Amino acid sequence: MSPIEALDFVGVALFAATGALAASRKQLDVIGFLFLAAVTGIGGGTARDLMLGVPVFWVERPAHVLACAATAVLVYFTAHLLESRYRLLLWLDAMALAAYGVFGAYKGLAVTGSATVAVVMGVLTGTLGGIIRDVVAREPSVLLRQEIYVAAAALGAATFLLLDRAGLPLWVTAGGGFAAALILRGGTIRYG
Amino acid sequence: MSPIEALDFVGVALFAATGALAASRKQLDVIGFLFLAAVTGIGGGTARDLMLGVPVFWVERPAHVLACAATAVLVYFTAHLLESRYRLLLWLDAMALAAYGVFGAYKGLAVTGSATVAVVMGVLTGTLGGIIRDVVAREPSVLLRQEIYVAAAALGAATFLLLDRAGLPLWVTAGGGFAAALILRGGTIRYG
Amino acid sequence: MSPIEALDFVGVALFAATGALAASRKQLDVIGFLFLAAVTGIGGGTARDLMLGVPVFWVERPAHVLACAATAVLVYFTAHLLESRYRLLLWLDAMALAAYGVFGAYKGLAVTGSATVAVVMGVLTGTLGGIIRDVVAREPSVLLRQEIYVAAAALGAATFLLLDRAGLPLWVTAGGGFAAALILRGGTIRYG
Repeated sequence: MSPIEALDFVGVALFAATGALAASRKQLDVIGFLFLAAVTGIGGGTARDLMLGVPVFWVERPAHVLACAATAVLVYFTAHLLESRYRLLLWLDAMALAAYGVFGAYKGLAVTGSATVAVVMGVLTGTLGGIIRDVVAREPSVLLRQEIYVAAAALGAATFLLLDRAGLPLWVTAGGGFAAALILRGGTIRYG
Repeated sequence: MSPIEALDFVGVALFAATGALAASRKQLDVIGFLFLAAVTGIGGGTARDLMLGVPVFWVERPAHVLACAATAVLVYFTAHLLESRYRLLLWLDAMALAAYGVFGAYKGLAVTGSATVAVVMGVLTGTLGGIIRDVVAREPSVLLRQEIYVAAAALGAATFLLLDRAGLPLWVTAGGGFAAALILRGGTIRYG
Repeated sequence: MSPIEALDFVGVALFAATGALAASRKQLDVIGFLFLAAVTGIGGGTARDLMLGVPVFWVERPAHVLACAATAVLVYFTAHLLESRYRLLLWLDAMALAAYGVFGAYKGLAVTGSATVAVVMGVLTGTLGGIIRDVVAREPSVLLRQEIYVAAAALGAATFLLLDRAGLPLWVTAGGGFAAALILRGGTIRYG
């Protein structure tokens, strides 16, 4: 698995975990866990692929959906053991945002060749899962709580693009973008 | 009209009727009835076709939109005669969910050949119309009220797939899936 | 630039401005302005192009995204000078609705040849930007406040189609549809 494919998988699984944690906070049953994990995990990437005019990733490779389901079941049996589900949700969400912000920029650039489109795809891909989760679960939107959310996705996408233009290998560009987004977002969770 | 085409038409018209009933509960005027009936009636199927990468059904055959409009006008002139608009909305919604859950699974299987994709399409198709209706009309989401909602769509889709794998004719597979979903969802309306 | 291309550009920029004004009302920072301007400005047209099965306009020509960004920055530095941001938001929204209602009908007719599809595309295109803005910014939905909103988009689309069928040149059909929608919507803002 290439570094960029790893980011894709990590993003889907982590977003699915935040959806399941939201279901846990709402005390839904296992079906609610599965549903929120699936729409949060695959929502952002679905919008990305539709807008880019490429086949939707999980329709081509349903393993992504099964990964969401496995994550939901895992969270269902363990979430009540946690001291603070909300704090874990925020950190998983930060990592998912970083992974998907970079992967969205990578795919946007690969398909269109436009840096502008790549940044917008990174931001939409990184933030949409969380927005869908918050709208469906009727939680206060992450977006309005902290605009740094959008900024972190944009920073991750832009860092990836700059490193890519410098001709660096994929594990540096993907890793650098991921780290930049996570540091900005994580800093505001930790100290904000 | 084949049994499966009937399910498509029934699903669109029933979802449109629930959208119009939501408009009635909000005391909107006839334009509000038309708008909520249309977005509820065609919303789920639109998302399904986009994700499957096939032409959107009502863009190909605009008769579906006219059916939504006719349903909206019919409800506009009769809804005030009802004793309980909300109870009727729940039952029409249950039937629409059952019809569209099965039809979504049928179309997902026909296009991709994957049972996983088929179940997810059934669930999304069956529930999305109601979610859009509740978000646009600012009603409490059907989804959070009763997770059985999602479970019924999944059961209908899975029943259809199992009967289909057993090689049964389409009117048995479609009818069986529809009945399974409706019994589960209807049971919780009646006794829940 | 043809009259119809002008409507496209005007619609995107005006919707972006209403998104930025909503960000100003919520006292978001500049990132919030950029995000709300972008999703409001390009949201309706994105849905239109996906449903019509044509390439998404801003993925093909990223200049539209840059126009949203420029609008957001302009509003960021000037919105606090306004006496009533909400009144300006309503009027810009009315003009954006009129422009996009007509442009959606034009593109829907050009792609499908169906007047029914054209009217629905006009209504969805004209109203969706405002709905997305209100859902993401958690404002009371424009739609439920005044159904005239939907009616104005439908009137603009229908006027365009009637004038087009009469064989009139594009600047008359586009201008006539725009004027009809704006007069109906503006009348309810002014006297409603």
